[in-house]
Amino acid sequence: MTSKEKGILIVLSGPSGVGKGTVCKALRGCAPDLVYSVSATTRVPREGEVDGVNYFFKTREQFKKLIDTDQILEWAEYVGNYYGTPRQFVEETLNSGKDIILEIEVQGALQVKQKFPQGVFIFLLPPSLDELESRIVGRGTESEESIRSRMSVAMDEFRLMDYYDYAIVNDKVENACSRIQSIIVAEHCRKDRVFSKIKQWMVEVK
Amino acid sequence: MTSKEKGILIVLSGPSGVGKGTVCKALRGCAPDLVYSVSATTRVPREGEVDGVNYFFKTREQFKKLIDTDQILEWAEYVGNYYGTPRQFVEETLNSGKDIILEIEVQGALQVKQKFPQGVFIFLLPPSLDELESRIVGRGTESEESIRSRMSVAMDEFRLMDYYDYAIVNDKVENACSRIQSIIVAEHCRKDRVFSKIKQWMVEVK
Repeated sequence: MTSKEKGILIVLSGPSGVGKGTVCKALRGCAPDLVYSVSATTRVPREGEVDGVNYFFKTREQFKKLIDTDQILEWAEYVGNYYGTPRQFVEETLNSGKDIILEIEVQGALQVKQKFPQGVFIFLLPPSLDELESRIVGRGTESEESIRSRMSVAMDEFRLMDYYDYAIVNDKVENACSRIQSIIVAEHCRKDRVFSKIKQWMVEVK
Repeated sequence: MTSKEKGILIVLSGPSGVGKGTVCKALRGCAPDLVYSVSATTRVPREGEVDGVNYFFKTREQFKKLIDTDQILEWAEYVGNYYGTPRQFVEETLNSGKDIILEIEVQGALQVKQKFPQGVFIFLLPPSLDELESRIVGRGTESEESIRSRMSVAMDEFRLMDYYDYAIVNDKVENACSRIQSIIVAEHCRKDRVFSKIKQWMVEVK
């Protein structure tokens, strides 16, 4: 309606193996206006990685300060390094009127929900449990024990779907993308988003 | 997910002159799977009108009985005849797994909301107040007083937008159709709709 309408934070999450990364990559092709959240990390940049594009590279002290000042929407430690989502980049994008998508593990998404409940939380599902298992097996890098463990974690994560707004099935990547795009359009049409403009109309006429 | 998933009732409403009928007509072309609600009426069938297709034709006694037995989702009297939305057709369509759309005046939509709160209520807006006025004027059938009166009713109806789930702008008919289709897709992806299936998965594995 107005050019000054705020963007929407979309959080795409789901169990390991469900295809979050593949769907997000495909979205870049079909939803060019969508901004992709850039994570912060304390790990050392690899060759060719650009600060602010691939990651925001931080020292441990800088990262800890971001956490302490509530400037990180979610974070985790992984193989000795911090990884997280800086609030500033998300908020600046939203204030500029653009939508931003954050692809993230299930636990991280719940952290984001606490700090940013106005986000739109989408849970990505496999078409079936068998399909999820064969995708994990298909990576060829997992032992049988590890596959069982991943499936068990996935089952726990399915229970957390209740904290999400939407659940979409990743039967085909293009279908999943199209569903996400529909959700974004629909969320922009939510009455509360449009109502403020209409209130102006009523003032004009009175 | 399952073929036995229930359909969704979509209620499209908005002030007179906003283009509800035009949008609904265009939707028939681009959303062929959507079922259109058939109204009941006590008026005499015109030549070529088919019972159950154009209207469900009822006697006054039959119509009153439908009202008394809560078989009408909303109704009004207009030029001496009853018009209304029969519950049975809506519920049978939803139970068959199909979505059904009901195009209706703002007051009627609020009646439906009371009886069918699980419906998805979409308010159609003009791009601007000037545009609404010129659409009403453009019909060429209204006196200046009648135009003022219609605009005043529209202003009252905008306030009722608060009872709706979505508000979409009818800037172009094809845009409005596409937004409605996105809303329908998104509503099918709502977590609660999908959750029941996932619960089955958890039973399977336990």
